[in-house]
Amino acid sequence: MEQMKDIIKFIAIIVMLFSFPCYGKEKAMILDWQIGYHKDEHSEPHKWMAATVPGAVQLDVMKAENYKQPYWYDNNVQQFDWMEDYYFTYKAFFKKPSFSPDQRVFFFSKGIDYSFKIILNDIPIKEQEGMFSYVDLDLTDYLKEENELRIIVFPVPKTGVSYQRKTESYRQNARESVKPAVSYGWDWHPRLVTRGIWDETYLVVRNVSRVTDSDISYKLNEDLSIADISIDLKGSCLEGKKFEYFLKDPTGEIVFHHKGRFSTDSQRLQFTLMHPLLWWPVGYGEPHLYLSEIHLMDSSGNFIQKDVDRIGFRQIKLVKNEGAEMVNVNFPKTRDPFPAQLEINNRRIFAKGTNWVHPEIFVGLITPERYNEQILLAKRANFNILRVWGGGIVNKESFFDLCDENGILIWQEFPLACNNYSNDEKYLKVLEQEATSIIKRVKKHACLAIWCGGNELFNSWSGMTDQSLALRLLNSLCFRLDPSTPFMYTSPLYGMGHGHYLFYDKNTREDVFQWMSMSNFSAYSEFGVPGVSNLSVLKSFIPSDQLFPPREDTAWEFHHGLYAWQEDSWLELPTLEYYFGEIGSLEELVSYSQLLQCEGVKFIYEEARRQRPYCSMALNWCFQEPWPTAANNSLINWPNDPKPAYYHVANACRPILASIRFPKFQWEKEEEFSCDVFMLNDTYSKVEPARVSVVLIYDKGKELNLLDWDFNGANGFQNVKGPSIKIKLPKIESQLFAVKIRVVGKEEYNSTYILLNKSDNASKIIPPKSYFKGETDFQL
Amino acid sequence: MEQMKDIIKFIAIIVMLFSFPCYGKEKAMILDWQIGYHKDEHSEPHKWMAATVPGAVQLDVMKAENYKQPYWYDNNVQQFDWMEDYYFTYKAFFKKPSFSPDQRVFFFSKGIDYSFKIILNDIPIKEQEGMFSYVDLDLTDYLKEENELRIIVFPVPKTGVSYQRKTESYRQNARESVKPAVSYGWDWHPRLVTRGIWDETYLVVRNVSRVTDSDISYKLNEDLSIADISIDLKGSCLEGKKFEYFLKDPTGEIVFHHKGRFSTDSQRLQFTLMHPLLWWPVGYGEPHLYLSEIHLMDSSGNFIQKDVDRIGFRQIKLVKNEGAEMVNVNFPKTRDPFPAQLEINNRRIFAKGTNWVHPEIFVGLITPERYNEQILLAKRANFNILRVWGGGIVNKESFFDLCDENGILIWQEFPLACNNYSNDEKYLKVLEQEATSIIKRVKKHACLAIWCGGNELFNSWSGMTDQSLALRLLNSLCFRLDPSTPFMYTSPLYGMGHGHYLFYDKNTREDVFQWMSMSNFSAYSEFGVPGVSNLSVLKSFIPSDQLFPPREDTAWEFHHGLYAWQEDSWLELPTLEYYFGEIGSLEELVSYSQLLQCEGVKFIYEEARRQRPYCSMALNWCFQEPWPTAANNSLINWPNDPKPAYYHVANACRPILASIRFPKFQWEKEEEFSCDVFMLNDTYSKVEPARVSVVLIYDKGKELNLLDWDFNGANGFQNVKGPSIKIKLPKIESQLFAVKIRVVGKEEYNSTYILLNKSDNASKIIPPKSYFKGETDFQL
Repeated sequence: MEQMKDIIKFIAIIVMLFSFPCYGKEKAMILDWQIGYHKDEHSEPHKWMAATVPGAVQLDVMKAENYKQPYWYDNNVQQFDWMEDYYFTYKAFFKKPSFSPDQRVFFFSKGIDYSFKIILNDIPIKEQEGMFSYVDLDLTDYLKEENELRIIVFPVPKTGVSYQRKTESYRQNARESVKPAVSYGWDWHPRLVTRGIWDETYLVVRNVSRVTDSDISYKLNEDLSIADISIDLKGSCLEGKKFEYFLKDPTGEIVFHHKGRFSTDSQRLQFTLMHPLLWWPVGYGEPHLYLSEIHLMDSSGNFIQKDVDRIGFRQIKLVKNEGAEMVNVNFPKTRDPFPAQLEINNRRIFAKGTNWVHPEIFVGLITPERYNEQILLAKRANFNILRVWGGGIVNKESFFDLCDENGILIWQEFPLACNNYSNDEKYLKVLEQEATSIIKRVKKHACLAIWCGGNELFNSWSGMTDQSLALRLLNSLCFRLDPSTPFMYTSPLYGMGHGHYLFYDKNTREDVFQWMSMSNFSAYSEFGVPGVSNLSVLKSFIPSDQLFPPREDTAWEFHHGLYAWQEDSWLELPTLEYYFGEIGSLEELVSYSQLLQCEGVKFIYEEARRQRPYCSMALNWCFQEPWPTAANNSLINWPNDPKPAYYHVANACRPILASIRFPKFQWEKEEEFSCDVFMLNDTYSKVEPARVSVVLIYDKGKELNLLDWDFNGANGFQNVKGPSIKIKLPKIESQLFAVKIRVVGKEEYNSTYILLNKSDNASKIIPPKSYFKGETDFQL
Repeated sequence: MEQMKDIIKFIAIIVMLFSFPCYGKEKAMILDWQIGYHKDEHSEPHKWMAATVPGAVQLDVMKAENYKQPYWYDNNVQQFDWMEDYYFTYKAFFKKPSFSPDQRVFFFSKGIDYSFKIILNDIPIKEQEGMFSYVDLDLTDYLKEENELRIIVFPVPKTGVSYQRKTESYRQNARESVKPAVSYGWDWHPRLVTRGIWDETYLVVRNVSRVTDSDISYKLNEDLSIADISIDLKGSCLEGKKFEYFLKDPTGEIVFHHKGRFSTDSQRLQFTLMHPLLWWPVGYGEPHLYLSEIHLMDSSGNFIQKDVDRIGFRQIKLVKNEGAEMVNVNFPKTRDPFPAQLEINNRRIFAKGTNWVHPEIFVGLITPERYNEQILLAKRANFNILRVWGGGIVNKESFFDLCDENGILIWQEFPLACNNYSNDEKYLKVLEQEATSIIKRVKKHACLAIWCGGNELFNSWSGMTDQSLALRLLNSLCFRLDPSTPFMYTSPLYGMGHGHYLFYDKNTREDVFQWMSMSNFSAYSEFGVPGVSNLSVLKSFIPSDQLFPPREDTAWEFHHGLYAWQEDSWLELPTLEYYFGEIGSLEELVSYSQLLQCEGVKFIYEEARRQRPYCSMALNWCFQEPWPTAANNSLINWPNDPKPAYYHVANACRPILASIRFPKFQWEKEEEFSCDVFMLNDTYSKVEPARVSVVLIYDKGKELNLLDWDFNGANGFQNVKGPSIKIKLPKIESQLFAVKIRVVGKEEYNSTYILLNKSDNASKIIPPKSYFKGETDFQL
């Protein structure tokens, strides 16, 4: 009989080996789901509709009940408003799968949004609040031949006052839930609180003997030449089972191998790796990844399980910015600024990047392909870091895998934003559960650079403080579970800056060039200049009769998000008219608005770099958007369409470039013009000497040489300030002129800027297409 | 036989009841200790000397080996320098005490400083690093009829460079130990690293059935009218034992009573108290304390143990200061300032207090009586808070008991100060052990208001940051063990200020009146104006031939502490000469220096109060000192002798007073004189309307009326600004003149200030004794 069992096991394993070509993944049995809605938890839906999983309850109803489509057109998302207070039930029938006595059947889901109850054959087997904790349920003991699995998704959690459009009341609704606050409405996001099964979800048959957790940790010595590695393996029914462990270097070569046998359900492996190839972010080296493989065999030596993890060896610190001690010199003295300087593998880097919001309103629709496209765009923009903003989700696993592979650092916020999150025990308990799941999952990734409590929690519009228990809880959890990753309560912290988000601020009467050159921050972790969306994007969601001029109570306003249709945001019409006169057409509106976004956001990135070494970081608000906005600070229109500013930012973030600081954007007729020139070098390579010239370009091909500079070269990670220029402007006919800085023999360092000529009767002009693609060679 | 046992037990209990009049305390068997020193751990001392316990190794050797005494005279403490690198062994012989089979014998110590090993009859039974974790050892199984107990105290832990006098090198020595950093040398403390048994230490016979821990916690509802109380009792061999629990109100009346029986070794009691009398700090109400009593009986109902704890019901929060959101108005915006406003029982208070350093260099010498004297002085100065500075010890239990009783809030720092404390595992492990002991002990006290990581850790001279693991560990421990008490990483934090510590700053060319009125901080948690010590104090430790003039390399320098003998600290001779001309005698030196301290520190307290509501706290550096200093920012000379500034500070901290803001201290001949008058009210009571006048007092009784003001009264916790005064100064002959503000019918609100007349040929004058006692009625 015992022999018989072994034979069966052997056959099962052979079958498994053939049917699971990818051993690291489980053989998922996908269920066929239906969905229905109801007013009370215990009432039955009136009808059942086909459900897409992963997806969202709103989309299933939209398809089944002939809602206006696409959901992102005009104000169609308002169709979903009624759903917030309804229950939704998912239902799936399945036959008992075949499995051996050594196996069990599990229901596994990577995410169900948000509060839910799971019922199998009328027996409640699980209740959970929280969309980020994976569900992993052993169903075996509840199974019949024919089974009905139900998931009841509870109504949207809401605290405080009820939501009213065109007010800021929406914010408080999110203050007791661990859900993306953005879905309650934001100034670029509509009110649309998504719910439902939002990540991979399936049944799976698993062996009872199984490694369930392999916790990899390592310590690098001071000069990073030695990695002391610990692998903690945990699982069930492992006693007596043999295993093999392999560590493979980035070329696939085995650099460590160990054969062993489990004496209990847990086992620790410890070994040393000499001269590990380090993981580096974009611009500073290759993102080397090792493979850590564990093979599990049963007592007869038959193969049962193979788990593969990746390890990127790197050391990440947040250290004091150079010059931080000079910020407060006199008594009474307050503390030195927060350490905002990222040091990777003992090298200070300049962190160039952007604020990441999730790329779809319905997070269940986000695919690895979408992540991949956008992460490649980030890399092509020379970004080395993404701040994953706390108003959104913690991304799916494929996001972190791609960042690991591409050398993109991740600043990961917990799902708290712009709210005074509760000190109540109930909320803190859910937060602890969700944060623990998030930390354990994400800490394995080499790309993880910073844990952060959430967005703008210490500003007046949020009202949290260092005493808020939610933040102390998160700090404590990160310290206990992942002490080597830097943690910050929120952004901004003391010394760091958020904003501004306008090209011209009528309160201070300053343009972006003016406030930015007067600023002195250790890190600009948010700043933006809004630009109207690309023409094709506008036409895709604004009914044609509303296209021009933009008006309130049309798709223009609706696609500003909640409470954002104001004089200065995000269209900035008064600013456009102040600079360019009356705006005569949609095409003019798009061009002028995008021109300001290009020059404004480019200036901030370059100025932040010029403010090194004290300044160490520049992240614009924001990279992309989850639906088509009318005007926004984003660089990429939904779903994946770069705006002109994207190309200009990519230029401003080149590892080495020639750069100019202008004191202002707008110049009067024949005014004394001035600017400062720089060579910027973020790399640890030297820059060779070169001849640099600066030229004024205006009135259809006219050129005026402003400067010749014998640049003497720069050391690694060194900026060099060149001469200043002071010259009386020539007579210029057009509204716009350009200034170009050329590096002879290194044209890839060239930069060109457009400025405004405010002379009376200056003629209107629109920059050429090549400008909007970020080319530095063009005529005006 | 069983009956016999019971009879023996009964007799034992009767004996116990009679011999333990105070049930809450244990019957201590005091040991007779000897001490010796040796170069290596395992070598035997050359000789044994009598030891005083609690005490310090230095003092025992001093007495036995005829060192120069007293230790605080001249530079006598240098005699102890050689001891740092020696081992010291304490030794005590004792006979096996008599005890019943239901009893065990324990060695108990509240503090052994710092690393040590305990050996009983040649068997090592305990090793510990850390002076704050109580030692509680069951010796029973190791006992013989005649016993020898040894405690080997290891050499002083030292990190980094070796100590050199007159340099700042000493600081680093402390960065890997949980010992008071101050003992390694400070700018008012000599290098003298004390060691030894520093708190109560004895043998004790205890019943095996025993409540070892009663953890009391409570939650107050929103309006503080209901306390939900939990008592978690834990112990050994409690199963079946009966107990009675009593809660007694501040008058001794029983307000809750419960009889029960332990079913396991732990038991939770939960009950509700309606309308608890709240604990309030000085100036805001009475510090009501309840008694929580647990009586333990054996299974036959015989009395075994009585434990008494005190409970003060109060709610303490650190909240955002009013106006914090106005500190950063423009973009880019950094975070709002740290919340530094104490809110007690839902009322914002103005925190008036001081920085507490331990009152004896040898902490083993500190007695409850010393604590009591100084805490009463604090209370008489109208202080409601002490910041127990991280450079010193965490005080003995009697300190916290006295603060509970007197309504003095405690800001408790962990023993970290002005250092970049290590991220090493070994240090963090000791810190975790010590901090855990400290938190569990101190959190029971109603007086505990704030946990703080340590002193000035985020300033350039320390170099720690929010990322330092020691601070994240402390935050995490406080959060886990005592989440309802506010926690801060260090002082100052963003928005709070430390300094200045001079009357006149020659770098900025500002006097204290000038910088203080221009400052805008949420809390002044350190500031000082130095004053020379009282004449009798100087004469007690400075050899008479060194008394005047003060010179380097004499007791004057030595009693400045380490590295403090500089032009501007702490004598401020150039300042004294700048204001008063040549200083002709020791008496003149003391008078002028103390005059500046009186006026300077008084101004800061009053100005901090005038800066309400944004400002919420004023704590001078420092209250007392652990040995006689030559000149210091302290208000009280060692051992307990108030300096004149003490009385002036007490005046400045009166709950209600009339106050004047002067733009500067020094006035030219017939200059236009200006000042602003205020009525300050820190209480929640109204101030009645009154007639207020301001008078200039000069040249032996001359008076000039400057202002009459019909003050209309003030609401609770409201300051009122009165009229401004602008007047040409009359001709004044003397170097000093006074300005007095009188409140008719409320003379207790009067204030008088002395200012400087800088006219040529102004005659020297010394204020009368009554001025130096803080009286507001005097002539000049």
